[in-house]
Amino acid sequence: MAEAIEVFPNPHPMRDYLIEHHADEFTSLCPKTGQPDFATITIRYVPGPACIELKSLKLYLQSFRSTGIFYEDVTNVILNDLVAACNPKWMAVESRWSVRGGIRSVITAEFGRNPQITGRGSAVLQHPPL
Amino acid sequence: MAEAIEVFPNPHPMRDYLIEHHADEFTSLCPKTGQPDFATITIRYVPGPACIELKSLKLYLQSFRSTGIFYEDVTNVILNDLVAACNPKWMAVESRWSVRGGIRSVITAEFGRNPQITGRGSAVLQHPPL
Amino acid sequence: MAEAIEVFPNPHPMRDYLIEHHADEFTSLCPKTGQPDFATITIRYVPGPACIELKSLKLYLQSFRSTGIFYEDVTNVILNDLVAACNPKWMAVESRWSVRGGIRSVITAEFGRNPQITGRGSAVLQHPPL
Amino acid sequence: MAEAIEVFPNPHPMRDYLIEHHADEFTSLCPKTGQPDFATITIRYVPGPACIELKSLKLYLQSFRSTGIFYEDVTNVILNDLVAACNPKWMAVESRWSVRGGIRSVITAEFGRNPQITGRGSAVLQHPPL
Amino acid sequence: MAEAIEVFPNPHPMRDYLIEHHADEFTSLCPKTGQPDFATITIRYVPGPACIELKSLKLYLQSFRSTGIFYEDVTNVILNDLVAACNPKWMAVESRWSVRGGIRSVITAEFGRNPQITGRGSAVLQHPPL
Amino acid sequence: MAEAIEVFPNPHPMRDYLIEHHADEFTSLCPKTGQPDFATITIRYVPGPACIELKSLKLYLQSFRSTGIFYEDVTNVILNDLVAACNPKWMAVESRWSVRGGIRSVITAEFGRNPQITGRGSAVLQHPPL
Amino acid sequence: MAEAIEVFPNPHPMRDYLIEHHADEFTSLCPKTGQPDFATITIRYVPGPACIELKSLKLYLQSFRSTGIFYEDVTNVILNDLVAACNPKWMAVESRWSVRGGIRSVITAEFGRNPQITGRGSAVLQHPPL
Amino acid sequence: MAEAIEVFPNPHPMRDYLIEHHADEFTSLCPKTGQPDFATITIRYVPGPACIELKSLKLYLQSFRSTGIFYEDVTNVILNDLVAACNPKWMAVESRWSVRGGIRSVITAEFGRNPQITGRGSAVLQHPPL
Amino acid sequence: MAEAIEVFPNPHPMRDYLIEHHADEFTSLCPKTGQPDFATITIRYVPGPACIELKSLKLYLQSFRSTGIFYEDVTNVILNDLVAACNPKWMAVESRWSVRGGIRSVITAEFGRNPQITGRGSAVLQHPPL
Amino acid sequence: MAEAIEVFPNPHPMRDYLIEHHADEFTSLCPKTGQPDFATITIRYVPGPACIELKSLKLYLQSFRSTGIFYEDVTNVILNDLVAACNPKWMAVESRWSVRGGIRSVITAEFGRNPQITGRGSAVLQHPPL
Repeated sequence: MAEAIEVFPNPHPMRDYLIEHHADEFTSLCPKTGQPDFATITIRYVPGPACIELKSLKLYLQSFRSTGIFYEDVTNVILNDLVAACNPKWMAVESRWSVRGGIRSVITAEFGRNPQITGRGSAVLQHPPL
Repeated sequence: MAEAIEVFPNPHPMRDYLIEHHADEFTSLCPKTGQPDFATITIRYVPGPACIELKSLKLYLQSFRSTGIFYEDVTNVILNDLVAACNPKWMAVESRWSVRGGIRSVITAEFGRNPQITGRGSAVLQHPPL
Repeated sequence: MAEAIEVFPNPHPMRDYLIEHHADEFTSLCPKTGQPDFATITIRYVPGPACIELKSLKLYLQSFRSTGIFYEDVTNVILNDLVAACNPKWMAVESRWSVRGGIRSVITAEFGRNPQITGRGSAVLQHPPL
Repeated sequence: MAEAIEVFPNPHPMRDYLIEHHADEFTSLCPKTGQPDFATITIRYVPGPACIELKSLKLYLQSFRSTGIFYEDVTNVILNDLVAACNPKWMAVESRWSVRGGIRSVITAEFGRNPQITGRGSAVLQHPPL
Repeated sequence: MAEAIEVFPNPHPMRDYLIEHHADEFTSLCPKTGQPDFATITIRYVPGPACIELKSLKLYLQSFRSTGIFYEDVTNVILNDLVAACNPKWMAVESRWSVRGGIRSVITAEFGRNPQITGRGSAVLQHPPL
Repeated sequence: MAEAIEVFPNPHPMRDYLIEHHADEFTSLCPKTGQPDFATITIRYVPGPACIELKSLKLYLQSFRSTGIFYEDVTNVILNDLVAACNPKWMAVESRWSVRGGIRSVITAEFGRNPQITGRGSAVLQHPPL
Repeated sequence: MAEAIEVFPNPHPMRDYLIEHHADEFTSLCPKTGQPDFATITIRYVPGPACIELKSLKLYLQSFRSTGIFYEDVTNVILNDLVAACNPKWMAVESRWSVRGGIRSVITAEFGRNPQITGRGSAVLQHPPL
Repeated sequence: MAEAIEVFPNPHPMRDYLIEHHADEFTSLCPKTGQPDFATITIRYVPGPACIELKSLKLYLQSFRSTGIFYEDVTNVILNDLVAACNPKWMAVESRWSVRGGIRSVITAEFGRNPQITGRGSAVLQHPPL
Repeated sequence: MAEAIEVFPNPHPMRDYLIEHHADEFTSLCPKTGQPDFATITIRYVPGPACIELKSLKLYLQSFRSTGIFYEDVTNVILNDLVAACNPKWMAVESRWSVRGGIRSVITAEFGRNPQITGRGSAVLQHPPL
Repeated sequence: MAEAIEVFPNPHPMRDYLIEHHADEFTSLCPKTGQPDFATITIRYVPGPACIELKSLKLYLQSFRSTGIFYEDVTNVILNDLVAACNPKWMAVESRWSVRGGIRSVITAEFGRNPQITGRGSAVLQHPPL
């Protein structure tokens, strides 16, 4: 993933708060068949010293457009790359994939300890069942 | 933000109660491209000595119309400015932004300790998942 | 079930994360009448050393197309076969069957201890009531 | 109830798992007026040595078609008969009746101790309010 | 069908008006297997000299409880019997059956010419697709 | 029906316009069993020289509370009484009854010719199917 | 109704186009009991030489707050006053009233001939049934 | 398709009436890949001398379980076979297929002239858009 | 409105086809109070020699951000400017405004004759009532 | 577009029938910025001598993945290519695009004359408003 994720200094580093990004237009390639896969990616995090810049996030996610990669791998790779780029206090990445061979898939990975921001109830992922 | 937030004395300071304002018509500018951004801003608080006056809140929120500012920053700035203006026991500010580059974002920040007003279940933010 | 379930090495074995697959097109045969049965199969697991490859999962599930087998049995057989193939930390299999004789059925079986991945709240099955 | 409930050996007796059957087409007679009553019957259980065979369950439930019996009685009779037939670790029977005289009724009875199968959250009945 | 359909004199015979009855609890038997069938029956008519008395309609519909009869036949038989009993200006009978062998069925039969009562737009059946 | 329907002079008699009243709380008695029946009554009309006064309409509808009367009769009686009281250019009355003996009923009667007020598209009744 | 309705010159008088205003906060008084009534008022028109200014429309509608007036009357009065103020090519006024004595009412009045602006399909009122 | 479609004499051949069958559990094979396809099949017809027997229809539809056939072909073949078996006055067959390669398909074919049974409004297919 | 609307040559000028753009983020200023107004703008047209370029349309719509202008005027101005820029065979512009003083407004203006593209049924605007 | 669209002989050329394909996963590139665009493509046609083979349709639609092309152009190009490949009696192509710059777009193009297959009511496109 040569596309760099840009960050900017967390403008309010003294406060734990929750940032959520939801990308409906993710596409990558199946590593076995080369066929395109489509997913929605949801990113939730409590920032540490830096925040993820949105345009670079868009370009970073677009950079998978020609990459052959498993669902499980790309979900964790996105988590790893974003964690490396912004060093958050907590982050979770969820990918929901469109139907392939009659099967829908959802992958969820998480970094760090959920700080229980009660302004949100908690920073827990709440999504409809599969 | 030169626009002053006016407050009036909390008419019932002996009781913890919950106030919510929901502004659908927030707009600011992207600090990188100068393009307009659009959001809905939700403010929830348990008042201390003062309550926020609604017309001044409207004008305060309008004052961002020509300001270039990140989503994360403006959410925290609104929280800081409102906390400074009315010194609440608890306050949470949530901003939900319209789609940019195929990505929807939600930022949630919070001040003070949630007083668990049980008339609401609690003063916790309850909103649909991203 | 001669159809082999293929796996690939868990690309991120150091992290507990949640994988969900939902197959709407499962069909097998009634062991008493030979009539076709139809179900949706939901598989949720936290991978150990290996992940289940999707195309082989599709072919594995298709391999029941001509098999006469009870609902209860096939649900546990799928769980057993998938556990044997990928040795997960936790796995649950749920089958929801279409109406037969005016009766709808749901079978749920589970292996291992739910690791409570908080990125998902927990890895607990959340589905609508029968 | 002369109709025998058939069972078959639990194919996976070493594992606690959850079986649910939902019958929308139950009908019996009012013991006072002889008028037909209509209900949906939901059966949930964790099997012991045996599982209930579905076709015999259908015929068993049909055997009440000409029986005059109170709502409360038939719910418990079904529970008793099914427990006697398959000796489950836990079982619950719920009957939801159509409107009579402007009144809808729901009866719920249970046998044994809920084993808290976490693959289901728990084996607890989750139904919409009356 | 020995059960007599009672009628009462149309209290307003000089006016064309529309009467609709919707019975959710119809059950008869399959003429081939003897198994119970379940349907909802909708009756719409513009009365002539007489109206159908509701309690006798209920008993009439209940009288099919032990009758083996095809869907197509019973729909037309109900139409014929009701037409014979009350001699309406127009009548339509629709039966919607619960799933059998994975198939849902709807039968619709009609007597006389739709008088286009504009108070109803028209007396046309408007129901959701199968 | 001793309760008088009061009217007041149509304040705009030169214009054809549409008036609709919807009463959810109608109750009368079954003429055969004495049991209470419940309905919603919808009245639509284009006024002639007079309009129906709402409070007297409420009292008029309440006056059926202790009256044993068939669905078909009361629908036409209300139409007749309202037509007699206000002499409309067009009027339609619809009654929708709650379940009795597993049967829901709807009766619709109409007086005069629909004047096709295009401000409403037309004055045609548009309601969901039975 | 002393409150003047202000208009401004139709900025595009050469084109027939459709203007709609929907006021959710209308309140007047019952002429018989003095109790407050609440309605939503919908105004649709094709302007002639002038357009209705929104703030004066708001103040005009507010001017009924202390007026005792029948539903039928106020609907036509609003139509008359607005027609007098702006001389439209076509106008329709609809009032939908909240429940009084268990009865909901809707009044619809219209001025001029519907010019069938096809950009709207037609300028016909399309609203859900009462 | 060796499975015979059984018919029985139309019990009411003097009347045009509408019969609809909806089969959710159709499955055949892709003629190019041999992979299973899944569809819901809707059949609507006005019977001539004979009606289609439901159990034989179920078995007939099941007989495609191991057949490789295009969507377009099987839809027309079903129409042809059913027309040959029962000689209807009018018949339409619609197949709605589950997603393959990210594409959902619907095929609709029709025999004879729609007799416009007004008890149904008309015998026209009314289904939600693709 | 100094912002130029760019067009590009209609790539398929020999065919009448329908183009629709829906902009949720329109904002202008009230000409009387200077307060911000918010609207969604829907543009539908059948192109002539040229099509409207989307980015310039976005910038053109943004150019009203600091303009004081009536709802009715801006709707027609947009129609006029777009017609001048691309000379369509037919065009309709609809603006739906957020609540002001308790009043929601919708303005619809149209140019040319609806060519009735049946691929769309027709090019008629179909939108929910105000 | 080098990817060939394969066809197969219409297996039932003597009958006019309707084929619909709905592709949710279309993506191409913006010809001005090179950024990815996403759309759902709906194709409806009445076949002539040939039908479009689904896998080649999938590959054909995928072939736009790296192509810079305007919405209006690609919609017509797809229509042209499909018409050239299978020579249908009628065809319509609709593309619905995800939000770009706050604007959603829908393009609809059509070839030939709608043959009004009444099994579908008509072959007219029926879709929700923009």
